[in-house]
Amino acid sequence: MRFVRFGHRGSERPGLIDDDNRIRDLSEHVSSLAGPSLDPDELAACGRLDPASLPLVPEGVRLCRPVQKIGKIVGVGPNYHDSASLAGFKVNPEPTIFLKAATAACGPTDPIELPKLSTRVDWGVELAVVIGRVAKYVSVEHAMRHVAGFTLANDVTERSFQLQRGGQWSKGKSHDTFAPLGPWLVPPDQLSDYDAIDLWLDVNGERQQSGNTAAMIFKVPYLISYISRFMRLQPGDVILTGTPGGVGLSYDPPRFLKAGDRVTLGATGLGSQDSTCVSL
Amino acid sequence: MRFVRFGHRGSERPGLIDDDNRIRDLSEHVSSLAGPSLDPDELAACGRLDPASLPLVPEGVRLCRPVQKIGKIVGVGPNYHDSASLAGFKVNPEPTIFLKAATAACGPTDPIELPKLSTRVDWGVELAVVIGRVAKYVSVEHAMRHVAGFTLANDVTERSFQLQRGGQWSKGKSHDTFAPLGPWLVPPDQLSDYDAIDLWLDVNGERQQSGNTAAMIFKVPYLISYISRFMRLQPGDVILTGTPGGVGLSYDPPRFLKAGDRVTLGATGLGSQDSTCVSL
Repeated sequence: MRFVRFGHRGSERPGLIDDDNRIRDLSEHVSSLAGPSLDPDELAACGRLDPASLPLVPEGVRLCRPVQKIGKIVGVGPNYHDSASLAGFKVNPEPTIFLKAATAACGPTDPIELPKLSTRVDWGVELAVVIGRVAKYVSVEHAMRHVAGFTLANDVTERSFQLQRGGQWSKGKSHDTFAPLGPWLVPPDQLSDYDAIDLWLDVNGERQQSGNTAAMIFKVPYLISYISRFMRLQPGDVILTGTPGGVGLSYDPPRFLKAGDRVTLGATGLGSQDSTCVSL
Repeated sequence: MRFVRFGHRGSERPGLIDDDNRIRDLSEHVSSLAGPSLDPDELAACGRLDPASLPLVPEGVRLCRPVQKIGKIVGVGPNYHDSASLAGFKVNPEPTIFLKAATAACGPTDPIELPKLSTRVDWGVELAVVIGRVAKYVSVEHAMRHVAGFTLANDVTERSFQLQRGGQWSKGKSHDTFAPLGPWLVPPDQLSDYDAIDLWLDVNGERQQSGNTAAMIFKVPYLISYISRFMRLQPGDVILTGTPGGVGLSYDPPRFLKAGDRVTLGATGLGSQDSTCVSL
């Protein structure tokens, strides 16, 4: 079962994708994909509905980020063996975590804004985890019980804002549209091989990143457990689990996004994104 | 005019403080102090109500944090001339900003939780700014138009989580109860001397911090304008503007909070907080 949100900005509705890849309207059963509706039991109940009983949504509708109310976005620093060494970041004995403003979230085909005075806007395809139940001091063993689902993410970063303007990363991570999410929310039991999925990212059709979550240094259940020691995780919170090798900063010379660039990315079982960069 | 939220956890209501320091119930006029209700024009309209026309609230009621739905908490690194040098932090040519999980917010008399495995929980009295209108690329000149009001804050930090576990501060700033806010939300026109207010903090009755916002390196309008270049500020977002000298880390030997410690703090025109530390 794959959950989506669809429609024009400001009037998005929840839906699901049927076996023929058509969108079905879920709004008679859940008001939104947010808060209590993200509880794994609630999503499982929706998953038991007969898709044929739900209204068909016309083709070509806009898909939005698959979670309505995002409380916080927790990012994980270098978390792939290849990426960490290539980008010159040191791998820490425990995860580096940072916060990205929730206002950075956008949909999988929305434009990516290049902030004023930005010169080094970079990409990063990632597996994202959406929390479905409150997690505080959860064990690694029980961590997955707190997950609503997985989605695809692009952790966009302005590298000079991140690294050269005061030492804390949030400044370079938080601009509007710096967290395209979606298209789908996929519950964990529908993506059981989440620690062995391929991730890829192209800029203008040229492959930049190509990785597999098998190369993650810190695995998903550990990350949830670890983060929950430092802050409460709530339904609608999103964890970005880190990006594989091939971010723009890792190339020599480095590569960054400019207006008009088209960024496409995808992951096994999680669909794909297609965003165009625009100047502010 | 001073706005508050009062009542038991889960059933808080908006109110205001009348000239006799009694709480009046505002819930017939605004559903909550959140989102659009924080617009400066909406708050001004509430301020024109005759307090005597509003229901009196019984004495002794719990005061909560004065904003219901907090989108994000943006912290500012060393921002007082005395604090920056004492704590050994370098003053940057532009503000250091970080994000603190919004789930850290609590009320002005709620207990402060000492996280498991914490050893260096520190305090920091601060002037907090509550955003009332969307701000993105706002000028310094127009910044104050986007402010709902000021409130008192304690920027609680676990110093070893902040500084010794992977380099990003959010890990040490985001535990539940690490952002006591309140008691009051005071609109800017009611606190016109916000750049010359006294701040103090005691632990178990002993003065630890004593400062004045006149010593701020980066002033409030500049901070709002600056932050709005890196992320969208929305109604209900909170900016913590930095703490004056006297945090626990600055003493030799350093001083940190332990279970049972009582932390009291206050600021001219913004009331006071009284919190007791509890172990988890």
